[in-house]
Amino acid sequence: MYSKPEMRILGVDDSPLVSKDILVIGAIMRGGSWLDGLLSTHIERDGTDATERIAAMISGSRASGQIRVIMLNGVTFGGFNVVDIEALHRLTGLPVIAVMRKLPDLERIRSALAHLSEPERRYELIARAGNIWEVQTRWRGGPVYYQCKGIEKDDAARLIVDTAIHSRLPEPIRVAHIIATGVVLGESSPRA
Amino acid sequence: MYSKPEMRILGVDDSPLVSKDILVIGAIMRGGSWLDGLLSTHIERDGTDATERIAAMISGSRASGQIRVIMLNGVTFGGFNVVDIEALHRLTGLPVIAVMRKLPDLERIRSALAHLSEPERRYELIARAGNIWEVQTRWRGGPVYYQCKGIEKDDAARLIVDTAIHSRLPEPIRVAHIIATGVVLGESSPRA
Repeated sequence: MYSKPEMRILGVDDSPLVSKDILVIGAIMRGGSWLDGLLSTHIERDGTDATERIAAMISGSRASGQIRVIMLNGVTFGGFNVVDIEALHRLTGLPVIAVMRKLPDLERIRSALAHLSEPERRYELIARAGNIWEVQTRWRGGPVYYQCKGIEKDDAARLIVDTAIHSRLPEPIRVAHIIATGVVLGESSPRA
Repeated sequence: MYSKPEMRILGVDDSPLVSKDILVIGAIMRGGSWLDGLLSTHIERDGTDATERIAAMISGSRASGQIRVIMLNGVTFGGFNVVDIEALHRLTGLPVIAVMRKLPDLERIRSALAHLSEPERRYELIARAGNIWEVQTRWRGGPVYYQCKGIEKDDAARLIVDTAIHSRLPEPIRVAHIIATGVVLGESSPRA
């Protein structure tokens, strides 16, 4: 199931924090390599609506029945609007893989959360994303890290490696990042 | 010069007419096949600023020295905000190719322009885009049409054929279209 070359993977990333309203981009890529469609939604900066809005963006789209896997650029969007990947998996019925370039600094996250509403609940959601695994892509410069729901960790690792074509991050996430930054800033920032 | 496989081509398309302010997307694609960066700007619906804004979007970007060719989805953006492709070529120093699925219906355009400011000047800009050529891509269903400045028509035709990978339209234009519609409507429309 996870090795069909033309399979549609959705990569999700947020835009830079230039306003209270944060643009979130979902790039639908065939076989992780070419853009087949684009979804977008808006979430509140440091709000608590990311899970629900991303799930609705997917479920409400015509492409919803064709997407096979969701890949997120980490689990925090629009500042500290945390995606509950367990709930996102349940709401969409799709496997969810959150990919990170670096291990999250939980100490720093906890102190940043202290300034926001519901710090305990947010921290719990971050923790609930579960074990953090690591995988080496074909790119030098260290592994990437990931958390996943609804998919075995080895299947998730294979998908990440297969789709990390032009950088250490899977194409759907790299492309969603380029689009989200380019639309909001006028020019994309090079690196997710 | 126009056959380097990793050459950067900029594809430009506008978003649907949902407001007075129209988002324009520039997708920078390597070898016409993978997304390397994204530019964006805004033009006025039915205004007269498209040429200038698109030129500034390119010249003001860090990627400006790397882009080798500009491909436009036709010459009218944001309604009837006409791009003067001769001026765009002169302002950027880059070859410009405007690609169309269908031959423009000049009769219909002329009567639509009658309702706008400066109808004669707009019509003159459309006419000034020059000869319309046709080229058959690898896709069935008829040729595509194009106009060009700063590049020989045969070189332009080869570039169109080489980059029409997933549809009759060159990848940079197809991708710019998906992004421009997906960001503004919440989900992309399938066809440029």
